[in-house]
Amino acid sequence: MQISHIEHIGIAVRSIEESLPYYQEVLGLKCYGIEEVKDQKVRTAFFQAGQTKLELLESTDPDGAIGKFIEKRGEGIHHIAFAVKEIESALEEARSKGIRLIDESPRLGAEGLHIAFLHPKSTHGVLTELCENK
Amino acid sequence: MQISHIEHIGIAVRSIEESLPYYQEVLGLKCYGIEEVKDQKVRTAFFQAGQTKLELLESTDPDGAIGKFIEKRGEGIHHIAFAVKEIESALEEARSKGIRLIDESPRLGAEGLHIAFLHPKSTHGVLTELCENK
Repeated sequence: MQISHIEHIGIAVRSIEESLPYYQEVLGLKCYGIEEVKDQKVRTAFFQAGQTKLELLESTDPDGAIGKFIEKRGEGIHHIAFAVKEIESALEEARSKGIRLIDESPRLGAEGLHIAFLHPKSTHGVLTELCENK
Repeated sequence: MQISHIEHIGIAVRSIEESLPYYQEVLGLKCYGIEEVKDQKVRTAFFQAGQTKLELLESTDPDGAIGKFIEKRGEGIHHIAFAVKEIESALEEARSKGIRLIDESPRLGAEGLHIAFLHPKSTHGVLTELCENK
């Protein structure tokens, strides 16, 4: 597949509110948007660092993926998202090369991107998102 | 502090050799260098994805930080490294704002960068590296 850059890094936090001072006042990054993604049971806060965004993920439901992640491992880096040229063919290529897919076909994610996740069991432990800005 | 971009993402792997097919053949990234960093007890493999590098970290000693990380949590994302303008003043700023430092002053890391780590206990669970290419 053709990866142009790292679109974002997803970071699980207990509370966006409580994390903002570190990202804004210590690192000097500016939060440019907060958005709820209901089907993923998260609230997200975005920061731009060069080409790549940081996406803080706060659980809105303990049964969601981020709620479970934090319960098990605490706050921390959750996933990497690569920007690809054509997400359908990238996903098909990953499947054909033996990668286990979490999403069999792309779906709509935060910021209107078309996204799909690869399972960390087949990516050496890294929850990996592919995304395309159509 | 002034962050220009994400310099790299560090990823702990059991074996660089066994991880290469995923990064090269599935993701289509090209490994442009493998380097041993003796004082960190790791071998590193680098890939470029836009502005940001992926740095695979393979332990060369079970008592090193990566050896312990993998024993405890398995393979996965280990740290984020931000490129800053002046690492000494960035580090001093972090300290003055209450951040716990792992490195009290910058030291030499892979690829000749001047680096220093912030402790994940004061960065909402994210092991954070600051680096400057002098």
